[in-house]
Amino acid sequence: MPGNRSQDGRYRRIEAFIDVEEALSQLIPRITVDRKVVGKRTRQAMWHVLAEDIYALRDSPPLHMSHVDGFAARSDDLQRASQDAPVSLIVLGSIGPGESGLKLPQGYVYRIHTGGYLPLGADTVIPQEDVRTDGSKILASRPYSALENVVPAGSDVRRGELVARSGEVLMPAKASLLESLGKYEVKVCAPLRVSVLSFGDELTDDPAEAGRGKVLNTHAALISEMLRGLCCEPVKMQIVPDRREAVHDSLSAAIGESDLVITIGGSSVGDIDLVGAEMRRMAEVFLQGLKLQPGRVGGAAVIEGKPVIMLPGLIHSTVNVFNYLAAPIIAHMLQMSLEQLILRIEAVMGERVEFYRWLDFRRIVWVTLKKVLGLGFVAKPNVADASNISSISFSHGYVEVPPHKAVVEVGEKVTVSVPLWMNRGAIIVAGS
Amino acid sequence: MPGNRSQDGRYRRIEAFIDVEEALSQLIPRITVDRKVVGKRTRQAMWHVLAEDIYALRDSPPLHMSHVDGFAARSDDLQRASQDAPVSLIVLGSIGPGESGLKLPQGYVYRIHTGGYLPLGADTVIPQEDVRTDGSKILASRPYSALENVVPAGSDVRRGELVARSGEVLMPAKASLLESLGKYEVKVCAPLRVSVLSFGDELTDDPAEAGRGKVLNTHAALISEMLRGLCCEPVKMQIVPDRREAVHDSLSAAIGESDLVITIGGSSVGDIDLVGAEMRRMAEVFLQGLKLQPGRVGGAAVIEGKPVIMLPGLIHSTVNVFNYLAAPIIAHMLQMSLEQLILRIEAVMGERVEFYRWLDFRRIVWVTLKKVLGLGFVAKPNVADASNISSISFSHGYVEVPPHKAVVEVGEKVTVSVPLWMNRGAIIVAGS
Repeated sequence: MPGNRSQDGRYRRIEAFIDVEEALSQLIPRITVDRKVVGKRTRQAMWHVLAEDIYALRDSPPLHMSHVDGFAARSDDLQRASQDAPVSLIVLGSIGPGESGLKLPQGYVYRIHTGGYLPLGADTVIPQEDVRTDGSKILASRPYSALENVVPAGSDVRRGELVARSGEVLMPAKASLLESLGKYEVKVCAPLRVSVLSFGDELTDDPAEAGRGKVLNTHAALISEMLRGLCCEPVKMQIVPDRREAVHDSLSAAIGESDLVITIGGSSVGDIDLVGAEMRRMAEVFLQGLKLQPGRVGGAAVIEGKPVIMLPGLIHSTVNVFNYLAAPIIAHMLQMSLEQLILRIEAVMGERVEFYRWLDFRRIVWVTLKKVLGLGFVAKPNVADASNISSISFSHGYVEVPPHKAVVEVGEKVTVSVPLWMNRGAIIVAGS
Repeated sequence: MPGNRSQDGRYRRIEAFIDVEEALSQLIPRITVDRKVVGKRTRQAMWHVLAEDIYALRDSPPLHMSHVDGFAARSDDLQRASQDAPVSLIVLGSIGPGESGLKLPQGYVYRIHTGGYLPLGADTVIPQEDVRTDGSKILASRPYSALENVVPAGSDVRRGELVARSGEVLMPAKASLLESLGKYEVKVCAPLRVSVLSFGDELTDDPAEAGRGKVLNTHAALISEMLRGLCCEPVKMQIVPDRREAVHDSLSAAIGESDLVITIGGSSVGDIDLVGAEMRRMAEVFLQGLKLQPGRVGGAAVIEGKPVIMLPGLIHSTVNVFNYLAAPIIAHMLQMSLEQLILRIEAVMGERVEFYRWLDFRRIVWVTLKKVLGLGFVAKPNVADASNISSISFSHGYVEVPPHKAVVEVGEKVTVSVPLWMNRGAIIVAGS
């Protein structure tokens, strides 16, 4: 396989590794950000990235609202009410849900339900269980103060208040709030269109072939789901054979059809000549070698203004490079706050971890969280070979060990990052 | 509105409130659990509830695997290698990705890539950067021990190991693990089919009508999304007018078409005669009145073996009754562990909260989490009227205040529950 050697006959080797931040700062200025902003009915826009700041168009509630079932009244009418001398008021009618514009004269009440809007003039509500009534009149036997049993207009949200920010992922409850404030349509980013190319003659999506010496393309399915969790839409998933034209054509097509391209495999130094060399030829900027372990052979390019992220083939590297390189680039392109999608949990390390290599790199240790009485969360490191998918699938998140730190001691405080695009935060910690 | 009064001419009032656990224990034995188990390609089964325990069908990796790009060798051949007396070995060929079944005789090596399977007889890998080669021979200048640069067979997962449990929601990384272990199809629960009925003449889904005195049906959209987060499929969303036949017919139809019915509104005591009375008539068991605040007017019925959960109309009550009554019933019906979908975060209370009513109830306070140096998470209570959707949409989770506790003091330790079906765990705590 001469393709595995570089021109000088020696095997390629990455000469210089750079920090992830440095990589991002080289890539980002060359990316043409062309996010598509669309208007969507608010309730259909959940999980999209908001592309506008949203200020409340009106007070919420818009009018004084009843907190109970009862009778809307004027507190003035009730000032002298007592057990011995109850006040009699005439029931003028019943206020329907959502009904507004009615007026309440002195000496009268309106039947009202929880959530109903008070009529003009009314400032208090007598709960139904407090009154005696024959349907046409009520007897009230104590005073009710202004705003008693009332949810005042504007007490939830004031008109003009900032209620949602551009860059925020629209959650269901926020969408409900916006609609209740009269914001029926919102500007959101259309999902980024992403192609996921897996390189390798050995790969297959067909279980039957996997039994006959081929390797199942499991990474692409995982990466596609992670993309969905980051407001992207995987538009294409393709296995590309190890031939130069195939590599070139698939990259070209993917760049034409999508906003961002993810490649999997073909970035280990052994295989670089095919995929990496082709990318290098096509790219405005190409870099490979990250101070991130596992993940150091990851790389990226910008071709025609579009980012191509090279994820290595060993699963820990695949996922780490996705999280450290692809996720921030996606966030940049969608102008989305990434931090809202990473849960940071303080924990203490449950086992000692010592590193012998790549000490000047940022090292990523996947951990399982366990709640221990009195200690809070204890993080059990799932130290494993970079090829081990089990250690990721049993983990709740990861600990980032900063450069030049060789040991994490038992009991040391660590921050566990839970990238919500991997598992929607789902964590089995109860019985574990 | 005579419908608002009960037969004795007085307004209905809930006589007895029961604990949520008691309500569940009355309902659950009457529910006919008829979850539909289906076989699905594993990668398409993500986010479904597993309906089988899964044991590894084989070791992972299935064979010794190379950790580096280099040459698969026999450690025996290299015992005497040194800088001064390098050992020369003949390159027999190259091992393709996924290729297996090759044999390595003494004196030979195979070219191998990261992730490749070692040939029979090989037990070590010489990294490519350590050797000199002309392509047909290599020179190794030090010994390599058995399993050096090798990921041993079964080191990730051992054949027969329990890797996934019935009741677990299948996460993307776990799905990848299962496929890599040869488990290409899994038994999962089909999503529960749920109807969501919103009761009220005043309701509309049309923004144009909402401007003209009608009330936008925002709760149903939120509840539907929460159902999706709990492995359910909202099959029908319907606004039902305030007429007895309409109530009856919509309930009958919904029960016929779905596994579970959610009603919204019509459960406040003022409106009970229409919806509640109809449910009472149809139900094997009917209960209303929970020791849960907000949420005390919530209820439930079992009709033809199917649960009907009555969510009150004020949004805090709607959501609380959903979380405390609907979610556990859904979990029961899917035989799903609910705890995996609730994140529990320890925090300290940032403000004093005092309660004056419903002291023997479980009270729910929604809170915003803020990370404070040295204190960990501080929970800021969003004490608000039960009608306030903003306090929920700005909250990260809720604190449950147990019965008979009147005050939560500043600095008191609390557990914040984050129901992941509401927000997939997304929490903006970074800059906040």
